[in-house]
Parts: sequence; structure tokens; C-alpha cells
Amino acid sequence: MYSPMIETLIEQFAQLPGIGRKSAERIAFYLLDSMSKDEVEHMSKVISYAKNSVLFCEECQNLTDISPCPICSSPKRDKSVICVVEEPKDVSAIEKTGQYNGLYHVLHGVISPIDNVSPDDIRIKELLRRLSDETVREVIMATNPTVNGTATAVYIKRLLKPMGIKVTRIAHGIPIGSDLEYADEVTLSKALEGRTEMN
Amino acid sequence: MYSPMIETLIEQFAQLPGIGRKSAERIAFYLLDSMSKDEVEHMSKVISYAKNSVLFCEECQNLTDISPCPICSSPKRDKSVICVVEEPKDVSAIEKTGQYNGLYHVLHGVISPIDNVSPDDIRIKELLRRLSDETVREVIMATNPTVNGTATAVYIKRLLKPMGIKVTRIAHGIPIGSDLEYADEVTLSKALEGRTEMN
Repeated sequence: MYSPMIETLIEQFAQLPGIGRKSAERIAFYLLDSMSKDEVEHMSKVISYAKNSVLFCEECQNLTDISPCPICSSPKRDKSVICVVEEPKDVSAIEKTGQYNGLYHVLHGVISPIDNVSPDDIRIKELLRRLSDETVREVIMATNPTVNGTATAVYIKRLLKPMGIKVTRIAHGIPIGSDLEYADEVTLSKALEGRTEMN
Repeated sequence: MYSPMIETLIEQFAQLPGIGRKSAERIAFYLLDSMSKDEVEHMSKVISYAKNSVLFCEECQNLTDISPCPICSSPKRDKSVICVVEEPKDVSAIEKTGQYNGLYHVLHGVISPIDNVSPDDIRIKELLRRLSDETVREVIMATNPTVNGTATAVYIKRLLKPMGIKVTRIAHGIPIGSDLEYADEVTLSKALEGRTEMN
């Protein structure tokens, strides 16, 4: 239906997360019909350049083009707290709250025996190395509240116990603005379990 | 928050239609974290190559990399009917029905005095040129049922009248699977107006 070159372009976009066939067609036509040659050339170069220059921060393992990354090298961040997350995008989710001023550690995955992902396959030893100099007083486990995310949090908690570091877990409960009646049973149970005293 | 290179990459995706800031971040991280260098390099090259090799079919004005395009040069298509649409994506929408076997003509826009788009700015003269050899018996106006789309259809219909070519308009009415009570008044009026006799 399309000429092979347009078809190839559509397929390139369709492989990206959250983009279906129809969105990919729309993007391809926008690129071919509405963007200038210079704009498209720039996009092509940015994609290639970004991939070739990206690296992992030697401290937090987040994606960056300078190591240590801006967060790890900032003098304004509290270096006594590390928040452990699964993926780079979780860092940006937490940063957007503006409520956290400590450091991060990106695991790049979770332990998952069924997918053959063992503790050695995610960046746990890099976390342990960062904890060896005793600057860090608290590690916040912010992995997702899934079976694997929780198991990974528990695994790391056990590793850190002998080191005398405080390990906390982010709260799970009813989302703000949501309605009790629409909460699933597990969330509601967690919300009850994690109740705190009102002042 | 992000290193400048990642921020630039996110902005590149955020400018595309249907992709918001959050989706752009997700795509950027997917590209940096999950795709291989070869895959990303290939994507970068396809984008650049597609933009540089795209051209307009000398017949139907659709986007293609060979002119005439596969549809115009197919011996299986009925060359006596031309369906006039606004944009290349409208061609693919109609092709997907599998119900149309004629040719197309892509206007690349509609007449819109308020946006300073005159009949000379869209590909109407290219349509007239195609009609000069008397092969075409019918022109189907499939511009969108908006003010400008309808005005453009009427404008072209008037131009073709002296040439003795049959000009038709696609039907407008209640979408299949939809419900009468949710149809707006204009659509419902059009549906009544365009009623056909049942056999």
C-alpha cells in the first residue's frame, strides 16, 4: 500500500513503546510532509548522537552523558540518603515531585527467577560499593509494588541489615484524588496496614 | 534534571504529533536503555534517508519514493475514477477499507481564506491536468466534512462542471456501530438528508 521506504519508516516508529501502527503512520507523514529537511536531519543526528554518547553514571548508574551525573555531582543534594529505583524513568518521576533531595541508585531491572534475572544481573554490587564508606545513613527502597519489585526490595534489605544502615520502603496505599470504592483489595489492605497516627 | 543530551533527545520526540512529554521520555529511555546501538543507528539512518528520498507522485501527488507511485502505476486499478483527499494519510484510510479500486488525488490541504490558503496553494491544477485526457469519468470528493473541506469540495465541483465529469461526494451520516442518541444534530441532519431507498 505504501512505497517500501515509507513502510520502513512507519515500522521504525511502530516499534517504540506506546506507539501503535496508526500513530506511527501519523508520525511518519508528519515527518515527510510537515517537517523541514533540516529539522528531520537534526532529529536523525540527535538520535544517533544520544545513543553513542550515553553512559551510566559511575555512582548512581542512571543514564547520563557526563559521569558522575548532574544529581550525583550536585553539592546541594543530601548524600546521606539513597533512593533505589528500578529504571531511569523512575528517577525522573521522583524528581518531578520536588520533595526528594537525596541521591538515587538505578538497578536497571528487578530480580526475576522466571525471566532468569539473578541478583548479579542488576546493579546491586554497585549499590553495596557506594555504601562502604559509611556516608549513607538511609536507603529508601522505591522498587515497584509488584511481586518481583517487592522481592528485590526484601533481598536488598537483607543484604544491608548487617551494615547497620536504615532501610525504608515507600508507602503503598490509596492514590490521592482516588476513591476508596475503586481501590483493589490488595491496595486497600496495604493502606490499612500502613496507617499512621493523625496529629 | 536530565543531562542536556537526554533532554535534547526527549524534546525531539515531544515535537511529534500525538506524543506528549511523558511519552517522549518513555521513548527516549527505551532508545537509550533497551535498544541496541545498531538498532538506533538504523532508525537514525531510515529517518534521514526517508526524508531525503521522498517525493510527490507526478500523478496523484501522494508521498512516494518512486514516481508514479505504486497505486498510479498499478494495471489493476480503475483509471476512470479519482478520489480526491486532503492528506496522504487519507489515502491509507481509504485503502484499508479494501473497497476502492480507483485512483487518488492528494490536495495537500484545503482552501482556507482565514489561513491564507488559496486554491493555487493546494494541488488543484495538478488534478485538472489529469482530467484533460478524458479517461476519468468520475471524481469522488472525499475531503473532510469541515467548513473548509466542504468549501474545497464545492469549489472543485464547480471547476469540473463544464468538463462534463461526474462529481460525487462521500456520504456523511451516523457511523456504523454508533448510537443515534449520541449523534450531533448536524450529523443527524446529514443522515436524514442523505437517506437512500431500502430494497
